[in-house]
Amino acid sequence: MIGDCGVYVDGRRRPGRVPLDQAAEAARTASGFVWIGLQQPTSEEIAVVAEEFGLPALAVEDAVKAHQRPKLEVYGSVVFMVLKPVRYVDHEEVIDVSEIALFLGRDFVVTVRHGDSDVLGRVRAELDSGDSKPVVDGPTAVVYRAADLVVDGYEEAIVSITEDIDEIESQVFGGDGGEDHAERIYKLKREVAEFRRAVLPLNAPLRQLAEGSIPVVDKAAAPYFRDVHDHALRASDGIEGHDRLLSDVLQADLARVGVRHSKIAVRQNADMRRISAWAAIALVPTAIAGIYGMNFEYMPELTWRFGYFAVVGVVVSLCAGLYWLFRRSGWL
Amino acid sequence: MIGDCGVYVDGRRRPGRVPLDQAAEAARTASGFVWIGLQQPTSEEIAVVAEEFGLPALAVEDAVKAHQRPKLEVYGSVVFMVLKPVRYVDHEEVIDVSEIALFLGRDFVVTVRHGDSDVLGRVRAELDSGDSKPVVDGPTAVVYRAADLVVDGYEEAIVSITEDIDEIESQVFGGDGGEDHAERIYKLKREVAEFRRAVLPLNAPLRQLAEGSIPVVDKAAAPYFRDVHDHALRASDGIEGHDRLLSDVLQADLARVGVRHSKIAVRQNADMRRISAWAAIALVPTAIAGIYGMNFEYMPELTWRFGYFAVVGVVVSLCAGLYWLFRRSGWL
Amino acid sequence: MIGDCGVYVDGRRRPGRVPLDQAAEAARTASGFVWIGLQQPTSEEIAVVAEEFGLPALAVEDAVKAHQRPKLEVYGSVVFMVLKPVRYVDHEEVIDVSEIALFLGRDFVVTVRHGDSDVLGRVRAELDSGDSKPVVDGPTAVVYRAADLVVDGYEEAIVSITEDIDEIESQVFGGDGGEDHAERIYKLKREVAEFRRAVLPLNAPLRQLAEGSIPVVDKAAAPYFRDVHDHALRASDGIEGHDRLLSDVLQADLARVGVRHSKIAVRQNADMRRISAWAAIALVPTAIAGIYGMNFEYMPELTWRFGYFAVVGVVVSLCAGLYWLFRRSGWL
Amino acid sequence: MIGDCGVYVDGRRRPGRVPLDQAAEAARTASGFVWIGLQQPTSEEIAVVAEEFGLPALAVEDAVKAHQRPKLEVYGSVVFMVLKPVRYVDHEEVIDVSEIALFLGRDFVVTVRHGDSDVLGRVRAELDSGDSKPVVDGPTAVVYRAADLVVDGYEEAIVSITEDIDEIESQVFGGDGGEDHAERIYKLKREVAEFRRAVLPLNAPLRQLAEGSIPVVDKAAAPYFRDVHDHALRASDGIEGHDRLLSDVLQADLARVGVRHSKIAVRQNADMRRISAWAAIALVPTAIAGIYGMNFEYMPELTWRFGYFAVVGVVVSLCAGLYWLFRRSGWL
Amino acid sequence: MIGDCGVYVDGRRRPGRVPLDQAAEAARTASGFVWIGLQQPTSEEIAVVAEEFGLPALAVEDAVKAHQRPKLEVYGSVVFMVLKPVRYVDHEEVIDVSEIALFLGRDFVVTVRHGDSDVLGRVRAELDSGDSKPVVDGPTAVVYRAADLVVDGYEEAIVSITEDIDEIESQVFGGDGGEDHAERIYKLKREVAEFRRAVLPLNAPLRQLAEGSIPVVDKAAAPYFRDVHDHALRASDGIEGHDRLLSDVLQADLARVGVRHSKIAVRQNADMRRISAWAAIALVPTAIAGIYGMNFEYMPELTWRFGYFAVVGVVVSLCAGLYWLFRRSGWL
Repeated sequence: MIGDCGVYVDGRRRPGRVPLDQAAEAARTASGFVWIGLQQPTSEEIAVVAEEFGLPALAVEDAVKAHQRPKLEVYGSVVFMVLKPVRYVDHEEVIDVSEIALFLGRDFVVTVRHGDSDVLGRVRAELDSGDSKPVVDGPTAVVYRAADLVVDGYEEAIVSITEDIDEIESQVFGGDGGEDHAERIYKLKREVAEFRRAVLPLNAPLRQLAEGSIPVVDKAAAPYFRDVHDHALRASDGIEGHDRLLSDVLQADLARVGVRHSKIAVRQNADMRRISAWAAIALVPTAIAGIYGMNFEYMPELTWRFGYFAVVGVVVSLCAGLYWLFRRSGWL
Repeated sequence: MIGDCGVYVDGRRRPGRVPLDQAAEAARTASGFVWIGLQQPTSEEIAVVAEEFGLPALAVEDAVKAHQRPKLEVYGSVVFMVLKPVRYVDHEEVIDVSEIALFLGRDFVVTVRHGDSDVLGRVRAELDSGDSKPVVDGPTAVVYRAADLVVDGYEEAIVSITEDIDEIESQVFGGDGGEDHAERIYKLKREVAEFRRAVLPLNAPLRQLAEGSIPVVDKAAAPYFRDVHDHALRASDGIEGHDRLLSDVLQADLARVGVRHSKIAVRQNADMRRISAWAAIALVPTAIAGIYGMNFEYMPELTWRFGYFAVVGVVVSLCAGLYWLFRRSGWL
Repeated sequence: MIGDCGVYVDGRRRPGRVPLDQAAEAARTASGFVWIGLQQPTSEEIAVVAEEFGLPALAVEDAVKAHQRPKLEVYGSVVFMVLKPVRYVDHEEVIDVSEIALFLGRDFVVTVRHGDSDVLGRVRAELDSGDSKPVVDGPTAVVYRAADLVVDGYEEAIVSITEDIDEIESQVFGGDGGEDHAERIYKLKREVAEFRRAVLPLNAPLRQLAEGSIPVVDKAAAPYFRDVHDHALRASDGIEGHDRLLSDVLQADLARVGVRHSKIAVRQNADMRRISAWAAIALVPTAIAGIYGMNFEYMPELTWRFGYFAVVGVVVSLCAGLYWLFRRSGWL
Repeated sequence: MIGDCGVYVDGRRRPGRVPLDQAAEAARTASGFVWIGLQQPTSEEIAVVAEEFGLPALAVEDAVKAHQRPKLEVYGSVVFMVLKPVRYVDHEEVIDVSEIALFLGRDFVVTVRHGDSDVLGRVRAELDSGDSKPVVDGPTAVVYRAADLVVDGYEEAIVSITEDIDEIESQVFGGDGGEDHAERIYKLKREVAEFRRAVLPLNAPLRQLAEGSIPVVDKAAAPYFRDVHDHALRASDGIEGHDRLLSDVLQADLARVGVRHSKIAVRQNADMRRISAWAAIALVPTAIAGIYGMNFEYMPELTWRFGYFAVVGVVVSLCAGLYWLFRRSGWL
Repeated sequence: MIGDCGVYVDGRRRPGRVPLDQAAEAARTASGFVWIGLQQPTSEEIAVVAEEFGLPALAVEDAVKAHQRPKLEVYGSVVFMVLKPVRYVDHEEVIDVSEIALFLGRDFVVTVRHGDSDVLGRVRAELDSGDSKPVVDGPTAVVYRAADLVVDGYEEAIVSITEDIDEIESQVFGGDGGEDHAERIYKLKREVAEFRRAVLPLNAPLRQLAEGSIPVVDKAAAPYFRDVHDHALRASDGIEGHDRLLSDVLQADLARVGVRHSKIAVRQNADMRRISAWAAIALVPTAIAGIYGMNFEYMPELTWRFGYFAVVGVVVSLCAGLYWLFRRSGWL
């Protein structure tokens, strides 16, 4: 799908859309540049544009197929860049990675978007509004603003993940060790891993841009890219930190589960001892009474005047003795 | 075994097979190049070819013995390259690694295949069909297409492994922690390790090719190799990610096993308490009845009019009391 | 908030505060330099200063927003540096990270502080007192003293963390494995991770300063920065060491929990055996007495003269036998 | 001990042994080179040789003391190299590391052997036989053949270790989790660690040799050393892989032990429930019969015609009821 | 404290101590050099020496404060080096790290010692004895000998730690898994970590010295420093190996604890079954006898001639049947 095609002169958009087949012409004649935005284009849709602006075939193929790493490639006077904006869907704890490919020439930018990132839309809105004088001009403005917003998005995602980790921490350390946090921790870790794959490879291209050594890209923009690079480095730091933190919290969770388990075992042992002690005490009258319940003809005690009371006394004493014994040894 | 021996001129194959002893001659006279394909050749079979094209002895030995790392070596005007195609056998969760050795000269390619990869077959089919104009010419076309297909194969394998990991995840987190996932996770990890050994060392040769600094190889092909290199990097990323993910899922599994175990312990403790409580309740009538079952001649209670009912009443009250006690303390 | 604005000539402060709008003028005319200190300034507050001294816009934005990595950036004749002082709040075991941004020009320093670090206050006090001849002059003195005090603060924090780790160690190894140290260890580990993020990125800027390759900064100060760099490296070593140590102590804790758990299991098993043995011994009289408590009309033993004594004898012998048996097999 | 001292001209050995004091002379006059082989020499034994050939004192000391890392050092026109051959003693699962030191000059080689490696013996046998024309000449031939055989030995050891790991895997996953594999895994891991120390440091010297930048060593041998280097890299890969695999298998073993443990706990819980259920059922007749065994004078039920049968009926019903109850709740 | 102050000419010490204020003079006039040894000096004590020889202030401060990393810094014509000798106190399993700072000039060495290392004492003894011609001359001799002895000390410590690890291994694998090795392993690991901090940073300075690129230090000593560097690398290898080994042995210990725990659980389960089986058997006579102990007037069996024997027979049969049943199901 072709999104938009506008001509920008002196940082302002000329009204209206340029027909696609006049775009290259418009780019050459105007002192500004043309920006063509494509969304999930088919090979045929992009072929027209590629032909007109002489885009490199391999890069075009990458842009159509998507699933690239963030990268920056120079093909003669065309620069090809891939950015991977992310969005953290908080209620699902999922990192949603989309993809933006940019072709930069002296007087044109072709952008290709996969997934539903709003980065390019916001760049275009900034340029179209013409409110703030852009810090850089021409196609460089587009790539700078896009990279900046993408990296800003990384930092937002990191903040959200930090909150989720805080939440996990309070679950792990607030609970009594009996809940299962492994799944949540693991799944967040997996998302962080995907996030890392979107961010880390971007550092090298941004460093190149910050060094101002890329053709087509305006050298004056180098400090701005240095700023973006710096933020990307911070994001990378943050992601690595989160990854380690999640590993650590899983370890801590394991330790807590272990401690809790051994607490249960201790309690179970104590219960068992208490139960057994009472059972032992209860067995005394049963056993003794059983003896005197035998029907032998000749059992001298049975005829004693206070035999019964004596036996009851013995039973009570034995029970009390056992109770005292168990008490002393800590079973009761 | 000698697979095929064909002469290619202007990207098209001349009909028929060239006899092996005329191959070098054909290569020199034709404006194109000769491609000789060998399959698990014996030292003798390859010796003929090596002699004719002046292949370096050490590289020839490597090509026959196989079990090399992916690599690229320059011997004067002959380039020796080793590729390791993989195939993921899904139902066994096994990575099947084969090996391709290529000797590149100005006007010849000698390929040696070990294991049953279809990469070379597909390259030859592409060239023979002559349908699509190849992007590069001569021996370079063979090595580019082979490397491209090999790396494509890596990406396919990664997709399959991703699916298996998803499956493992749903087993680990779907189950109740009582199944044993360790074996499956470990074995997949081992396969990923073997996969890594096939992929990672390829990055350096591909970067060299992408820089266009290798003799014999057509400099115009550099952007194409850059593309392949890029995909290989992505594959490397993917493999590293999978490896980490499998470690993480094993950790998470361990944590789940632990949590489940302590849940069992909790339940066992609860069961033991409940059982003991009932046993205690049941011991009361037994013990008391035992007392009044004694045969002493003088047991005043026995002659009471309502002694029996009193005792039954006491027993019932005691049992009820115990029940209430256990209930209150949560044992019942 | 604007903290202070003073003119320093020959390492001594001229009395009084300079109004902000005369600061740049004062800096140019005096042979010394102006130091403007801002605290959590709003964009408007800093805008005045930025305008007057020509501070780079991007850096100004970073200084206002804070949450930067430690870094050093050269913008023409202005150097922008970010330092992250830390304070270890011992009773909470929390690393409190604040942030200092410095703009250095030939004849001015602008410092921006976020959080409540006392580093800049102490630097100013040192300069104002004029007691000790500073080793370096001009703006360089400010950045050197600030960096030095910040890194000193790192070393103090490391000492405090070392003490906490010692405390954790004696808890882990002193206790009986039943307490839960995971939370404390984890939380300290998280603080160490945050600490690391403040320290590690500082090494690169300090190395640059130690090499004396940064404009504006006095080359004569290089050895002093080398000293600071050396301390920062030692701090980095210390942090890495602490991080590893905390991981190790968590592992050791896990092992102890495991050992303790299996000790409990052993004891429980022994208890169970002892209990069961006594129960078995108690069951003997009950069972036998039960037999002779039956009311059959024809039970020859009942009429024997010494039947009763015989049975009691048998019971006692059986109990003694069982006792001996259990003793021998280690159950009692 | 002095092993042998032979003169080699044109890749063939001159018959007989050269007396040690004529060796240097022979080396200078002959167009070939002298090879002196020493075995665990004393300082005195090596001193003679060192003097004659001007061997560097520090290297000589290293060669006598042994316990060096694999390394290559250039002392003017003498090259000193240390190799560490290994032998995997399969039935003990032990890596046996020996040590070879080589001094290379233009016209001599002095080798010093510690431990019982057969590498030097095989090199000498190859040279002495003179069967196959060596690919390189002079002292270089000795160091190339020695390095090649040492690295071949690494690959053999790796194959053996692979087999042992396979065996461990089938033990771990074949068994029921009740055996203790930790010791075997750990000990193999320790051997792999020692193996790694023998192999990894060799990569740097071999790369230098492969680059042909070492004096004395024949530049023409560079491709051969590249081949050896390549094999050493593969061996390093293999060792790293084994190390990781052993860690993984230990983790998997841990997980299996955990799963098995919780299976035992489940079974124990089920057993306990079953046992308790039967005990409860058995307590019913005991308790009820106890009641009617009491000797109260007035117990109306006792005089009922069918009291006995009623009670037996009640007992049976209660037992059946309990049975049904336990059955329903899954305890029986 | 000032230890000693001697003048060395031609590698021999001139008799007597030189007064401190004549030391610099003596150094300049003698063709040799002066060596001043200080022990834990106060700032005042060192100030005299620093003044006389023009020692750099920052380095002097470091030397007084101690707690430095091993390092080498060049201040014009003075070289400052820090070494950290270690001593392994075997009976406490503790690494005792001391510190040596050396200032090297053309004609002087100032050494500062913290802690009780005997390294400097031994260097001085070697020089003073004048027995063996030192391999290098002047201040370089001091730093070479000191570095050499320090690194020798590392190797000795590694040997001792190896022995302790062997001991731990035999404890872990010799015991039955019920002892707690975690503390010992952890504490040794902590010592190894401290050891590592003393050793690893030394490699860079030693490499610089081995390259002969440090002013003041005699270039002829480069091979000797290369030797020391080589030993330091080996020590580093050893330390890393020990660290990994200790992690591995802790893991193996964990696995053993787990296996042992599950063995206990198995035994407990078996015990419980055996106990329950016997209890069930014992309950049979009790329950049945209880029935016939009831005092119902009408219980036909009681009047049977052989009722008693029948019941005893039934009881015995039931018990035997149960025994057989339990036997068959493996409970007995």
